[in-house]
Amino acid sequence: MKLSIDQAKELVLDILLNAGLDQPNANAVMETIVSGEIDGCASHGLWRTLGCVSTLKNGKVIPDAQPKIKDLAPGLLAVDAQGGFSPLAFEAGLPLLQKKARAQGIAAMAINHCVHFSALWAEIEKLTDADLVAMAFTPSHAWVAPAGGQSPVFGTNPMAFGWPRKNFPPFIFDFATSEVARGEIQLHRREGKTIPEGWGIDRAGNACTDAAEVIDHGAMLTFGGHKGSALAAMIELIAGPLIGDLTSAESLEYDRGTNSSPYHGELLIAFNPQGFLGASTEDNLQRAEVLFDSIVGQGARLPSQRRYAAREQSLAQGLNISDSLYQDLINLR
Amino acid sequence: MKLSIDQAKELVLDILLNAGLDQPNANAVMETIVSGEIDGCASHGLWRTLGCVSTLKNGKVIPDAQPKIKDLAPGLLAVDAQGGFSPLAFEAGLPLLQKKARAQGIAAMAINHCVHFSALWAEIEKLTDADLVAMAFTPSHAWVAPAGGQSPVFGTNPMAFGWPRKNFPPFIFDFATSEVARGEIQLHRREGKTIPEGWGIDRAGNACTDAAEVIDHGAMLTFGGHKGSALAAMIELIAGPLIGDLTSAESLEYDRGTNSSPYHGELLIAFNPQGFLGASTEDNLQRAEVLFDSIVGQGARLPSQRRYAAREQSLAQGLNISDSLYQDLINLR
Repeated sequence: MKLSIDQAKELVLDILLNAGLDQPNANAVMETIVSGEIDGCASHGLWRTLGCVSTLKNGKVIPDAQPKIKDLAPGLLAVDAQGGFSPLAFEAGLPLLQKKARAQGIAAMAINHCVHFSALWAEIEKLTDADLVAMAFTPSHAWVAPAGGQSPVFGTNPMAFGWPRKNFPPFIFDFATSEVARGEIQLHRREGKTIPEGWGIDRAGNACTDAAEVIDHGAMLTFGGHKGSALAAMIELIAGPLIGDLTSAESLEYDRGTNSSPYHGELLIAFNPQGFLGASTEDNLQRAEVLFDSIVGQGARLPSQRRYAAREQSLAQGLNISDSLYQDLINLR
Repeated sequence: MKLSIDQAKELVLDILLNAGLDQPNANAVMETIVSGEIDGCASHGLWRTLGCVSTLKNGKVIPDAQPKIKDLAPGLLAVDAQGGFSPLAFEAGLPLLQKKARAQGIAAMAINHCVHFSALWAEIEKLTDADLVAMAFTPSHAWVAPAGGQSPVFGTNPMAFGWPRKNFPPFIFDFATSEVARGEIQLHRREGKTIPEGWGIDRAGNACTDAAEVIDHGAMLTFGGHKGSALAAMIELIAGPLIGDLTSAESLEYDRGTNSSPYHGELLIAFNPQGFLGASTEDNLQRAEVLFDSIVGQGARLPSQRRYAAREQSLAQGLNISDSLYQDLINLR
């Protein structure tokens, strides 16, 4: 099924409004969903509309939440999403975060009490578009065991980073600190396949290739052993207690088995390169280009290259949606 | 050989002064070296004195450098180490970094033009001691290939993170983004042993277990595949061009084969939990303790547990130094 970007936007917006989201929230969520689809990332694309509707039906999100901005300190702000989906809260806080980063050199924004709904990279790109360097962190649901343990404590806890580039799309990475996405393991289970070693452990903490055991009784593993586990702990702390919001364990408890999106917080940090570099900003950003050249020049890929290629194709040719997903979406319209 | 902590301090100080460091620099480097030894980390302990002396002999460090503090923006400062070892520059900037973090909620400090000389954890601990949450990043020498490549671009690029705890030593991790330390591979080479797969690649980019090939013609690998590689790139960028300092490739070029310590920069970020949390700071720090309990309670270790155990033992019983290292040190006194 081929959809133009405008058709996709209209379809998703209709569904979200129909499911009860108010116009500002529906617009913000729709933009996030469609930009995921444009970037060829199916897991953050139109498919997400279904999860969004079911989270609404479960009463786990406030459909007409009005984000509230709190100016906490010269370098800090928080946006209370008031139980709504995160995109509107992010949009609400973005101008003040940019202003603070420019004025202070570095600034941080907490998004609190939001229902998770975004690819971090999309938010990061809003900051690199404003010539800022940016980081983002968020916990999720406690599904992942710490290195050396056997019980879930951490979420899949993604982090993202962005660096603005003058003549190229920004350098952006966005990865889960779990070895793989939870959906990947669920997919193997549905298809009756074993999973590779390193993705999860059984209830006793042993290496396990049985997807059902990992999901139901065991735990997922972090990427990179004890180092990935340390990063996952950092993300719990700085995007949880540091900003007065839930850890992944607390978020899972709040969910009470409804399989809704995590309810939690997010931390964003923005740096103004001009603050450090002043008149030498251009020269130094040019040295970063030398670094990128030395990576690309040896045939290695930059983290977002695939996404940008998909974006180029989508913008030129529109979106390809599977017939079954299209039918599921039409049924909700 | 058993040394009291005071004896170790005196010995290292004598050697550094004898090698030409001025008193303030010698004191700062000595404190760093001895605290590494106290924490049972031989690679950052008394053994480092030897490398420090050889870096001095190679003329790669200014022995009487006077760090210069630049107040760049409300949330930013830089300390120009003026070609000296990093510890004195860190000490010089620390009070202003703490002050800015308290006033702004978040602040960052660049250390520029320094000869690398520290375990990041020791610096992080100075910030957690002041009830701040902290991060630190630094590039090194270009020895590590990006994921999917075959030529060195990144350094071993460590990052560290710290979280203050009321009734326990701080939660601190400090890891290289390379799979292992370079010294580990060199040790295998010296002993004629092969290295495990995953540590490095040969000149063609293939998995390689020959330590000499990896060191002389190939490259080391990052931990955690493309995710570790992305982190290593981030550290190059934020502790290199963002702060107007050298990338690992530039630092290696500056070295010109003398095997001296990297000459480069470092980025530190400090967050004031009070800025986000105000009156609810204690409650939220307590929720972090619940997270730590859920890790330790299942038999998993927190990142610095081994160091703190070593510290306790050193403070009670003094330091155990190998006879050969002691002899090498005495010869330099």
